Amino acid sequence: MEELKTRLPKDAVSVNPTILEQHGRDESYHAPHNPDAVVFAKSRDDVVEVMRIAAKHRVPVIPFAIGSSVEGHVIPVQGGISLDVTAMNQILEIRPEDFLVRVQPGVTRTQLNRALKPYGLFFPVDPGADASLGGMAATNASGTTTVRYGTMRDQVRDLEVVLPGGEVIHTGSLAAKSSSGYHLTGLFVGSEGTLGVFTELWLRVYGLPERVMAIRAEFPDVSGCVKTATAVLGAGIPVARMELVDERIIEAVNAYKGTSYPKVPTLFLEFHGNPEGLERDVQTARELAEEEGCLGFAFDSDEESRQQLWEARHSAARAFMAQYPGRGMMTTDVCVPISKMAQAVTDARELLDREGVYGAVLGHIGDGNYHALIAVDTKDPEDVARAEAINEQLVEYALACGGTCTGEHGVGLGKRKYQEKEHGRALLVMKAIRSALDPLGIMNPGKLID
Amino acid sequence: MEELKTRLPKDAVSVNPTILEQHGRDESYHAPHNPDAVVFAKSRDDVVEVMRIAAKHRVPVIPFAIGSSVEGHVIPVQGGISLDVTAMNQILEIRPEDFLVRVQPGVTRTQLNRALKPYGLFFPVDPGADASLGGMAATNASGTTTVRYGTMRDQVRDLEVVLPGGEVIHTGSLAAKSSSGYHLTGLFVGSEGTLGVFTELWLRVYGLPERVMAIRAEFPDVSGCVKTATAVLGAGIPVARMELVDERIIEAVNAYKGTSYPKVPTLFLEFHGNPEGLERDVQTARELAEEEGCLGFAFDSDEESRQQLWEARHSAARAFMAQYPGRGMMTTDVCVPISKMAQAVTDARELLDREGVYGAVLGHIGDGNYHALIAVDTKDPEDVARAEAINEQLVEYALACGGTCTGEHGVGLGKRKYQEKEHGRALLVMKAIRSALDPLGIMNPGKLID
Repeated sequence: MEELKTRLPKDAVSVNPTILEQHGRDESYHAPHNPDAVVFAKSRDDVVEVMRIAAKHRVPVIPFAIGSSVEGHVIPVQGGISLDVTAMNQILEIRPEDFLVRVQPGVTRTQLNRALKPYGLFFPVDPGADASLGGMAATNASGTTTVRYGTMRDQVRDLEVVLPGGEVIHTGSLAAKSSSGYHLTGLFVGSEGTLGVFTELWLRVYGLPERVMAIRAEFPDVSGCVKTATAVLGAGIPVARMELVDERIIEAVNAYKGTSYPKVPTLFLEFHGNPEGLERDVQTARELAEEEGCLGFAFDSDEESRQQLWEARHSAARAFMAQYPGRGMMTTDVCVPISKMAQAVTDARELLDREGVYGAVLGHIGDGNYHALIAVDTKDPEDVARAEAINEQLVEYALACGGTCTGEHGVGLGKRKYQEKEHGRALLVMKAIRSALDPLGIMNPGKLID
Repeated sequence: MEELKTRLPKDAVSVNPTILEQHGRDESYHAPHNPDAVVFAKSRDDVVEVMRIAAKHRVPVIPFAIGSSVEGHVIPVQGGISLDVTAMNQILEIRPEDFLVRVQPGVTRTQLNRALKPYGLFFPVDPGADASLGGMAATNASGTTTVRYGTMRDQVRDLEVVLPGGEVIHTGSLAAKSSSGYHLTGLFVGSEGTLGVFTELWLRVYGLPERVMAIRAEFPDVSGCVKTATAVLGAGIPVARMELVDERIIEAVNAYKGTSYPKVPTLFLEFHGNPEGLERDVQTARELAEEEGCLGFAFDSDEESRQQLWEARHSAARAFMAQYPGRGMMTTDVCVPISKMAQAVTDARELLDREGVYGAVLGHIGDGNYHALIAVDTKDPEDVARAEAINEQLVEYALACGGTCTGEHGVGLGKRKYQEKEHGRALLVMKAIRSALDPLGIMNPGKLID
């Protein structure tokens, strides 16, 4: 602590109880635990300094930005230093011709999109929260556009990383593809702060499409939504967004955002392209939806109602939780092969009903990724246990059909117990890599792998 | 050797000089070196057996399939066992609804596409050679469709890998995306046989597009090709293929394949989509090409001339080398950011002319990846040195502008010398990973990293 204060600007180090508390929790049901100190880094050099001191004294370091994790990633379960990079929030370079940007880790996704708009560019990955790009890279976040544009891992070209010993590396290059050396960028993306601290990111960005059209396709049941989604994928339509929201989410969103969407299971769709091609795609999608019993195919084609639609979708989890003040959010995040999706989602909806919990289903159905949201009374061990049992049952099904326990939220604390079941002996390889890169075990201990 | 013969079927182990010689070389200018033995594996269990014996006696193992590497990947520079998996060539499962297939590593790309056709599916990655899918995964191969569909790494969902000690793991899952554990699939793809032996691959496949159109856009100079390519990308046209071939390649292909394409620098283009959208894309591309001085915009829209076009492109390197019997092929493989491409390709063309070597330029220009092919007299050290100096100069330029020394061929023997310059201290991380996973150093020693 003394050394931190000596080597860093005085106001960079804090042990203020409120500050510690803010850095001891995230947005999930996981129990908070305070760090011993918070360091506010302003530069890569600050991060290097912290890592050197931490390595010398074998103190845990937990990178922290927005704190919007839903799996406890940023909770300092063994104390140590919470390394806050929110002040590292500069967009350093925009290269329109290369479709690349260079940003610091504390830049948020909406901040980046505001800066890109004048160039006719956008960054597609959009988790519900206005998360930091560093955090999004650390968990391989994704969102509503992944079905077309891919996950965070697909956007990161290069990372500047401060390793546990204070060494600085670059993991990739600016080339669109490379067969040079091991794919470190892919390894560090999704490593959840266990291999190093990101201090700069080169990200791929995209030209705003010539024409955009948003659509709400309403169905009598969840199964109609899922079957339509599968058919749209099967027809090879390059849909840009394809989201499932059940009637409970619609109800919550209407109350939270003042919208008046019909209270039925709905697909939120978006199409990007040239006008002629897009019109044809929309027509095909409409025919497929009608074959599955679509009740209404509503166009939100003007910019305002389109924005409103996606704001509604992004606020879905918050809207749902707002109905249950004082409760904590538990969310499953399984991802299954497309052919298993209809069964998986229908079973999940029935399971929530049968167990009588406060639950809803929504998800990025084009990826086979869906969430069962449960409002949990975190003070009632029985309620927590019931929600955990549901979570476990959905994960078991996903793993049995070749899926994953987490499509986009990451492992953190909540999904550690499924790692051995999902990865088998590959977990030993992961452990070997972690030990090789962080032999002292100071990077975000207690997360991802036990 | 005795142990190999005891533990494996008798005909699986060979020390026949012709067999050894066939496994001691690849398609490049790199000097051959024979293995001590060749083992023909028929199953994962055979591979496990070989790895256990090799680990026990600390003998190098070099995975081998088609041998179409152009960077010496399969050459057993330290002797040992060449592990031939060509007999593991079964397509084990096709899941049309999930757009997934499960294959053994010896299956070739054309074999897979033949099997997929009845399902209306195709596998996009297409290096020039009819390479094995295991080898393509090992080098993160790509090809003409990468601009739209991505590299080999983008297609591999899961690998079954036999580790250096004989342990078997799966690196991924069948889910379209995952945030669970470290991204081992991405790490093993492109690891060039240095981390383990692939025994099964789950690959993503795609629906055949509704409409396909191939086009040859002819230009007075290479620069017009490159500028058009940049403009097409900038306009956000989802072009499926965009290939540069210079006049020397056209000449060689005409002689080799009996075609009669005009002898000028040409862009080979292909568009995929619904008829309305595709027509609009082609029209926009044509306008952009004409702005850059396009001399001719020839449609190869019927299936036969389209097939002919891509066969011509795939045979380009062989056609070029056929003009110089007895010479070996050296090819650069740099990949640069799009904004640097016009300068890079023009400089490369001028450099080849100035040095007076037998050289030609072609490449996957939509990715910023181009090849300077040089026919080298491998018996003349001066000629080899001159070609290497050209290679080095092009690599230096690519690295200086943030690119990579190899976009798709891999490091093997030929690009090792550039690894430190390209990766800096990240090379130490790669070495740490290699040591952690292969502590005995028996997996393809002498390749990728020194």
